[in-house]
Amino acid sequence: VTSPEHIALGPGREFDAIRSLLREWAGVAEHIGDDAALLEVPRGERLVASVDACIENRHFRREWLTPREIGYRAVAAASSDLAAMAARPLGILIALAVPDQWRADLDEIGAGIADACRGTGARILGGNTTAAGELSITTTVLGSAFAVLERSTLRPGDTLYLTGSLGASGAALHALRANTALDPSHRVRFARPQPRIAESQWLARAGAHAAIDVSDGLAVDLAHLAAASGVTIEVHLEDVPVVPAIPAERAVASGEEYELVVGARAPLDTADFAARFGLPLTRIGLVREGDTEVVMLRAGVRVANVGGYDHFTI
Amino acid sequence: VTSPEHIALGPGREFDAIRSLLREWAGVAEHIGDDAALLEVPRGERLVASVDACIENRHFRREWLTPREIGYRAVAAASSDLAAMAARPLGILIALAVPDQWRADLDEIGAGIADACRGTGARILGGNTTAAGELSITTTVLGSAFAVLERSTLRPGDTLYLTGSLGASGAALHALRANTALDPSHRVRFARPQPRIAESQWLARAGAHAAIDVSDGLAVDLAHLAAASGVTIEVHLEDVPVVPAIPAERAVASGEEYELVVGARAPLDTADFAARFGLPLTRIGLVREGDTEVVMLRAGVRVANVGGYDHFTI
Repeated sequence: VTSPEHIALGPGREFDAIRSLLREWAGVAEHIGDDAALLEVPRGERLVASVDACIENRHFRREWLTPREIGYRAVAAASSDLAAMAARPLGILIALAVPDQWRADLDEIGAGIADACRGTGARILGGNTTAAGELSITTTVLGSAFAVLERSTLRPGDTLYLTGSLGASGAALHALRANTALDPSHRVRFARPQPRIAESQWLARAGAHAAIDVSDGLAVDLAHLAAASGVTIEVHLEDVPVVPAIPAERAVASGEEYELVVGARAPLDTADFAARFGLPLTRIGLVREGDTEVVMLRAGVRVANVGGYDHFTI
Repeated sequence: VTSPEHIALGPGREFDAIRSLLREWAGVAEHIGDDAALLEVPRGERLVASVDACIENRHFRREWLTPREIGYRAVAAASSDLAAMAARPLGILIALAVPDQWRADLDEIGAGIADACRGTGARILGGNTTAAGELSITTTVLGSAFAVLERSTLRPGDTLYLTGSLGASGAALHALRANTALDPSHRVRFARPQPRIAESQWLARAGAHAAIDVSDGLAVDLAHLAAASGVTIEVHLEDVPVVPAIPAERAVASGEEYELVVGARAPLDTADFAARFGLPLTRIGLVREGDTEVVMLRAGVRVANVGGYDHFTI
């Protein structure tokens, strides 16, 4: 039977690093130290599992974030994939590849990992540490669900809704890269994204039947939804909620937002959602039969080449 | 309901790379492309999950292995942690961090990943690809078990058994690093390790109740077992099966062997094991009450400082 106590490890520098992390993870990690983690999936539910990597100089630069934010952000981003499926987080496995010049920051990175888990309710169940040439945090999230939201279940006639508003994360990234003035409200969206775990459960119960999270940018992620479901998605740019002073064309290319897009047959109660979560839920478009494509309109006229970004080209 | 068909992805270079991998994974991968993978854990069984990273210039050098061997080895090594728990592999999630200079090798790495999955019976359920400065393959293995073998369940009076024989992987690593003549039988143990999945199921059914896999070297891994169970482990070096021409002192420091050490109360039928798997199963020591330590003896005399290796110092 799994207990919260950890398994003692033998001597060694790698294992000292793990012991130090376990002190940081008190109350969050459980039963670390065996060859693998054990987890009960609630009876009648399916396991929902995803992996996401966060790598220095690809997903962030060292001078942009504190070590604690780096740890938090890696796990929050990975957890957003559970939100996209309306799964309840159970636990995470965390693989840390740590260069010498980051060794002193490892406990703070660990503290951020624990922050994210406290936010989602996941336990830290296991992991792996290794030396590396660049810092890399690879998070496996494990959750469970009775009924999931999928990318492939959008149908003609569905209405599309978006949680929150877009553009802050992309604006922060832009300012950080250009080394220009950074709006603190933009920075916090980049540094401390909120996976929409509870929101997603509400949306699934309210009748949403398809979803994706906005990680590559709304335009790219809608293209995935359209391709997965074999439908045309039509979005009016005027309807997309955008943070102040950011043009909609930039907001729909803003990645790492971790908001959710869902499709629903019957109207969702956006006022109830907003009251409950302090976050807008906005109707942004509809689903039509047709080619698998995303049609973005401004004042009724199609706007071409509204893009996203590509992880391989950051 | 999960089907073997994949979910279509939108356009983009990252997604082209994934589409190409999916062709390589025909018959092994299933239902790739949603935000997370779905998995049924057999009723009454627990999920067993572990993560392992394999990083260029830490765990291997490019000139030592083919891309296909690199992919195989990463997944085989991760799968060994399921063997150590006597879990049946269900699926893997694979996070690939790929520098530009490795892009052309990605499909071959993928072919090796599929080879390893065919060997263990795991399906490829999902993953993540990203650019990076160094090649890194992080494998999450998901399995299930009704009763598991653990590190902490060794008891005084138990007998310790080892599968296979040790030393070839360490000898290969030594020759590769020194650029000296490499015995092909050593190389194959380094390049194509065999996780002891079926063997582990047999051992658990035959009465073994504690286990660890030899990844850090027998001496270090026994220290983990002793620490986890709070016992003294006594090993006679003469009893440790070693490949030809390797001294036992080096063989017990040889890492990445992926053999299993198990503890059992009643004697195991080593002849039946050998006949079934074409692999020796050898009694190598016993468990005593006492300090949590490993006592290595040669001709009845304690040998000090028989070491292992430390992932952070490779």
